[in-house]
Amino acid sequence: MPTLRIALSQVNPTVGDLVGNAHLVRAWTRRAADAGAQLVAFPEMMLTGYPVEDLVFRRSFVAASRAALSRLAEDLAADGLGELPVIVGYLDADGPPQVSGDAEPGRGARNAAALLHRGAVVATYFKHHLPNYGVFDEDRYFVPGDMLTVVRIGGVDVALTICEDLWQAGGPFAAAREAGVGLVVNINGSPYELNKDDIRLPLVRRRAAEAGATIAYVNMIGGQDELVFEGDSMIVSADGELLARAPQFAEHLLVHDLELPTAGESVGAGDRVADGLRVIRATVSGSLPAPAGPRAVDGTIEPVADEAEVWHALVLGLRDYVNKNRFPSVVLGLSGGIDSSVVGALAVDALGPERVVGVSLPSQHSSEHSREDAAELAKRTGLDYRIEPIQPMVDTFLANMSLSGVTVENLQARVRGVILMALSNQEGHLVLTTGNKSELAVGYSTLYGDSVGGFNPVKDVWKTLIWRLAKWRNADAVRRGETPPIPESSIGKPPSAELSPGQLDSDTLPDYDVLDPILIGYVDGDLGRDGLVEAGHDPAVVDKVLRMVDTAEYKRRQSAPGTKISMKAFGRDRRLPVTNRWREHG
Amino acid sequence: MPTLRIALSQVNPTVGDLVGNAHLVRAWTRRAADAGAQLVAFPEMMLTGYPVEDLVFRRSFVAASRAALSRLAEDLAADGLGELPVIVGYLDADGPPQVSGDAEPGRGARNAAALLHRGAVVATYFKHHLPNYGVFDEDRYFVPGDMLTVVRIGGVDVALTICEDLWQAGGPFAAAREAGVGLVVNINGSPYELNKDDIRLPLVRRRAAEAGATIAYVNMIGGQDELVFEGDSMIVSADGELLARAPQFAEHLLVHDLELPTAGESVGAGDRVADGLRVIRATVSGSLPAPAGPRAVDGTIEPVADEAEVWHALVLGLRDYVNKNRFPSVVLGLSGGIDSSVVGALAVDALGPERVVGVSLPSQHSSEHSREDAAELAKRTGLDYRIEPIQPMVDTFLANMSLSGVTVENLQARVRGVILMALSNQEGHLVLTTGNKSELAVGYSTLYGDSVGGFNPVKDVWKTLIWRLAKWRNADAVRRGETPPIPESSIGKPPSAELSPGQLDSDTLPDYDVLDPILIGYVDGDLGRDGLVEAGHDPAVVDKVLRMVDTAEYKRRQSAPGTKISMKAFGRDRRLPVTNRWREHG
Repeated sequence: MPTLRIALSQVNPTVGDLVGNAHLVRAWTRRAADAGAQLVAFPEMMLTGYPVEDLVFRRSFVAASRAALSRLAEDLAADGLGELPVIVGYLDADGPPQVSGDAEPGRGARNAAALLHRGAVVATYFKHHLPNYGVFDEDRYFVPGDMLTVVRIGGVDVALTICEDLWQAGGPFAAAREAGVGLVVNINGSPYELNKDDIRLPLVRRRAAEAGATIAYVNMIGGQDELVFEGDSMIVSADGELLARAPQFAEHLLVHDLELPTAGESVGAGDRVADGLRVIRATVSGSLPAPAGPRAVDGTIEPVADEAEVWHALVLGLRDYVNKNRFPSVVLGLSGGIDSSVVGALAVDALGPERVVGVSLPSQHSSEHSREDAAELAKRTGLDYRIEPIQPMVDTFLANMSLSGVTVENLQARVRGVILMALSNQEGHLVLTTGNKSELAVGYSTLYGDSVGGFNPVKDVWKTLIWRLAKWRNADAVRRGETPPIPESSIGKPPSAELSPGQLDSDTLPDYDVLDPILIGYVDGDLGRDGLVEAGHDPAVVDKVLRMVDTAEYKRRQSAPGTKISMKAFGRDRRLPVTNRWREHG
Repeated sequence: MPTLRIALSQVNPTVGDLVGNAHLVRAWTRRAADAGAQLVAFPEMMLTGYPVEDLVFRRSFVAASRAALSRLAEDLAADGLGELPVIVGYLDADGPPQVSGDAEPGRGARNAAALLHRGAVVATYFKHHLPNYGVFDEDRYFVPGDMLTVVRIGGVDVALTICEDLWQAGGPFAAAREAGVGLVVNINGSPYELNKDDIRLPLVRRRAAEAGATIAYVNMIGGQDELVFEGDSMIVSADGELLARAPQFAEHLLVHDLELPTAGESVGAGDRVADGLRVIRATVSGSLPAPAGPRAVDGTIEPVADEAEVWHALVLGLRDYVNKNRFPSVVLGLSGGIDSSVVGALAVDALGPERVVGVSLPSQHSSEHSREDAAELAKRTGLDYRIEPIQPMVDTFLANMSLSGVTVENLQARVRGVILMALSNQEGHLVLTTGNKSELAVGYSTLYGDSVGGFNPVKDVWKTLIWRLAKWRNADAVRRGETPPIPESSIGKPPSAELSPGQLDSDTLPDYDVLDPILIGYVDGDLGRDGLVEAGHDPAVVDKVLRMVDTAEYKRRQSAPGTKISMKAFGRDRRLPVTNRWREHG
């Protein structure tokens, strides 16, 4: 059996940065060569970043991606790396790119993989299964490929596949068995969801069995707008053994020696195999670089607690949003409450204390302990702490207009928003929003007030998970002999918006332990009223909560175009028509 | 040849309002019966409204749609209308509804049409061609149908089709020819775009030729969030003659007598025809109601000027957003400038002057003529006019913070936003936003300032079109012997934000006559820099404009989650990744 030393490059590309992404490929191919690798694979759409969304419709962008691929092949050869085969994702098109709004889609762009060798593109593969659910819109952007690309590398037949090809039965993995390949490389831009790693390994095992081949799965890491890519690259043998697995949320070069079957001749170029795929054959000519040094055996990573996984995802998503957009720093309001404390701690973990400005914005309703807790968080984390009292501005509005009730509560939050935006304009900080998902879902927040900001790291985090994250982060600090960042009283005290005297969340909302499971069913699970009652929730509470969510949607449509509804965990908005009249609560 | 009197019900359903929509069907079926109709057709997804977006994923909603359909059939019979066949769109599913985020779409929901007769569902059709471009996401929501449903009605074979089936060659229209049908009914939820009516008629003619049959095309009207449905229902004979055509943007019952061929026997139930469609056959039993009175011949509508078409679309979209959401009234800031003047006039046309509050929000930079122009608009239209000076609040912020430059300009706009939102909270008005599309594209506006509001009637209207609309509306008033609503000086004066002394738009932006064509190419047309230069634009101006658009995107990502980019005309946002690094300007 031939041995192939494979290197999976779990890296962090940036959308649109063709030059920077090509540099990443060259640098990591150098690392792989130094590790004696004989084949290197990079993630889906590595050259363009992922997802590129409507950039697909711009012909100039498609042309730039193709040109960058040719240039990369030449540069790798010029770097002295031309003998090492490199698999890389990019954007291609086999005709004029699809035109947005065109009534007859079907021409157009391809989600593509190329194998580069000796300065040239040796083989190409177009993604066959296109995902069009959840955060994915690939039916809108791409034409599905109808090929099975098999490349002979060092006497082994290797099939190229992309992401969703792995998530659906049939297609290239079934075809790979017919073609008798020894290895299927699957390159990914697979976004993080809670516990997705727990379903990914069994899935890769099923496909290994279907293909009768070893699977090398490589995923990107990094934050991209509302998505976080988690890595979790792995290699699974044909009989289902997990040979190596990379960590989540960190760059990693997974290098491993594989014993693979010698290629035979089963199907030829042009043959039709499973799902009607047409076989494309190519060969990496010459002999591969000999693997240097001892046998390469990468380790496997053990799963971590949910809180650790989520914390690292939030830190990475925030850091990449700030850095990929080139913001120098962030600013957020610190109330002493749990939400802004957790966001402050996340920001310091993501960016370091010197890039985080925390502003206490006290009013006449702010309690002494709130101000102390905000100051204590600042002291523990070392962030840049300031105090901007809002009462003079609030009083001027009240002196010039006749306002009462909730309007006065909202006014306070909006004056805070104006102050944070003024600091952003004056000093260049990105404003962070700190509202949790439970609050957003029931509308317990002020539009253009506490909703102000360019990025909300906890918008997908239910309130009960906010508390769990705070406790986990503090305990983790203790384990490492560090100061817990979040003041214990921020975690322990009853939540309050402090917009009127003695106000508590519990005056308005059910306990979060009761509220969150209902919201999770209604918002994330698309359960209706009857489904929630069947699941064991109190019908009166269900009706109250559904009414609050529907009313919150009404308030949003009153004054916030574009913000339709709270988010699915790390994913796409729930998209409901705003003039919707469907109500099922009592 | 049998004669069939058909009635096309061009009505205005509301998403989610199953009860109200069913009442509409009953009321308009009554009208059709009174007009002697023998067949009535209602638009696509009539019972649920369109588009229902993620409501499709809620099992309880699908079940409610099915139940509403059965109930409607029974109610029509109870109304004494059971003998009249009624075609109506609804939401169906042939298994458990699709689950959002499910990795294996393909089971699930159907965009369906039913023919109701004598209290029962006689035939069903599932939409075959699903649009997934522009504003459409139907691959996400629906499974395509694989049937050709042919119903024999009064000796004529009638095929049922839905919307996109008409926009693609092949499929049900080609199959209809094989089946030898005499009439194809096409029910629609087809959103308005500028001049779409000019391409619709030739398209219907092509399909009439393809099917060798008369086409009865019925479309809904009304505003639904960011979409406006325009009506423009029509009947075209097999040889391409336009027999009747309904107006745009108004409810209408189009009643027309059709001479149609007697049904023969070409293909039977279960046969496979074009595109692999399976033939479903049904018969409306008994004899149809005899047409009463003289021969029914509806008229054809002549096309109107672009400005008239756009004005009516904007009025309808605004009115339905306000009324379908049950807002009592709207409030907007009136600066005396052209944008807020046009929005004020649109609001009065949509809602009447008693439901429109206009607020002058003068600062120390507001010129005397601006205040006079705002007051003059109020006087001409009769809207509720108020004055809320912003200087005291601006001064308090400036006294308590160290702010300078553009930050002070933005502060003024944000104080205005806080005032408008306070009036909204206190009195229940929907806040209207007044920024035109050119401003939005180049970022010549203040986030959480003049961007505040729940609905912006002119967000898709380029600045040069704003002026054309104003002139058209005034001239139209003169033609009708009414007072032109918009002060001439608002139209004629050079545009200014009036946020600093002597400020003019032209200090910062190219002339709008130069700017708009470049923006249209870059934002709507997805042209790149080279494409714009090839189109004849000055390269230096192109570079400047592209840099402004890209910078505007940067500013938005700094502080407005969810608002990615300016809008396509009456449609979907341009979706660009916000951390995108792709730049092609010099």
